[in-house]
Amino acid sequence: MHKLVLMRHGESQWNLDNRFTGWTDVDLTEKGREEARRAGALLKQEGFEFDIAYTSVLKRAIRTLWLTLDELDAMYVPVINDWHLNERHYGALQGLNKSETAAKYGDEQVLVWRRAYAIAPNPLDIDDPRHPRFDPRYASLSPSELPATECLKDTVDRVVPFWNDTIAPSLRAGKRTIIAAHGNSLRALIKFLDGVSDEEIVGLNIPTAQPLVYELDDDLRPIRHYYLGNADEIQAAMAAVAAQGKAKQA
Amino acid sequence: MHKLVLMRHGESQWNLDNRFTGWTDVDLTEKGREEARRAGALLKQEGFEFDIAYTSVLKRAIRTLWLTLDELDAMYVPVINDWHLNERHYGALQGLNKSETAAKYGDEQVLVWRRAYAIAPNPLDIDDPRHPRFDPRYASLSPSELPATECLKDTVDRVVPFWNDTIAPSLRAGKRTIIAAHGNSLRALIKFLDGVSDEEIVGLNIPTAQPLVYELDDDLRPIRHYYLGNADEIQAAMAAVAAQGKAKQA
Repeated sequence: MHKLVLMRHGESQWNLDNRFTGWTDVDLTEKGREEARRAGALLKQEGFEFDIAYTSVLKRAIRTLWLTLDELDAMYVPVINDWHLNERHYGALQGLNKSETAAKYGDEQVLVWRRAYAIAPNPLDIDDPRHPRFDPRYASLSPSELPATECLKDTVDRVVPFWNDTIAPSLRAGKRTIIAAHGNSLRALIKFLDGVSDEEIVGLNIPTAQPLVYELDDDLRPIRHYYLGNADEIQAAMAAVAAQGKAKQA
Repeated sequence: MHKLVLMRHGESQWNLDNRFTGWTDVDLTEKGREEARRAGALLKQEGFEFDIAYTSVLKRAIRTLWLTLDELDAMYVPVINDWHLNERHYGALQGLNKSETAAKYGDEQVLVWRRAYAIAPNPLDIDDPRHPRFDPRYASLSPSELPATECLKDTVDRVVPFWNDTIAPSLRAGKRTIIAAHGNSLRALIKFLDGVSDEEIVGLNIPTAQPLVYELDDDLRPIRHYYLGNADEIQAAMAAVAAQGKAKQA
């Protein structure tokens, strides 16, 4: 039996500001850091140990992982940073306030951009300074590899090959694995692992910094999964995530 | 021309307590963390960017690196943790107070243990709980690879192959590299790079958390090296390191 822990990053500044983040490299808030420390303490209390860790190249996920490993007294665990685990690229929406966008275009249109499986927001212009080709962390990638927008399907199409080529072989080799990533890159992975439909996956809300444990058989098929920690807190955290896209009342 | 930055970790709790540390996984003090942040800020101010980072599996070096990368806004840089960059293993001296050890055995004997190139302290007993075979971070290594004590020569004999096999090829591939490590693993590397004699290397005092820049030619031979930052501070930091082994006066 293989054990895998998935974790969405803690609250970021733009979660708090209710802005579309995507590949923007926004940091955790102090609350987000505290969430990550708590997740680490919980994993330690439950006796979890790791041989390898995966995260994106975005600091909100990396810091979540670092704080977790620090709390586990396991800073020596090898960390693989890979852009395939990045949040879904939000295209031209990146930086916009979700409520203002909803007030302007209507809840429905925003829900389409946020939640339609195969409809991406407008792409960033190739000369937009927000385009990833200007960011040194993607300098080794060819322009054709770099998205300027993504729908969830696009995210699935980059997460799943990374799982198959990199994470799955290391799990098969017996490495106890933690992945600290983002709402949509984790949705992509969970869709693949659990065979969730296109319609259902867009409604799955993953709470921040709550360790989600997958037990996998020898073929890496899920036997079961569960969140560590308090069930009421997890429900409240899921509801908070689900409410983010709505225009603010009054 | 290749650029390489070497950095010794900031002040650790046992630097402060004046105890022999070796492979003991002691954390940085608050001052040590501040030193690391300052090093990062200095590197940023001087326009340094990195493609890859190497460190040991000991948290005082890892945390120094993490704080440096955080300050550089470059947490996404791949970090390779490898035990070959660990501090020299101090054998049965690990945990003992340097001044007390000097008062008991004399400055001269302690200086031999600390500074003779090829004389190691007594080894840890194979059943000593401090032996690295009990530490999960070394679980994948065979007992014959794990030292129970080292002289500086032993440290050189593990650092240089790691340089040749891992760091040098990545430098040749053009990767801008930072190494956050320890007094003796950095001595080992500097001995190799600059062809320092056995006699001289033991007297080389590397200040904590001061970025030491090596410019290397295409064959990775040093063209020149220099510390970033204030020369007086660096001199004072070297003198403080040199004074550590002496028995406390009065």
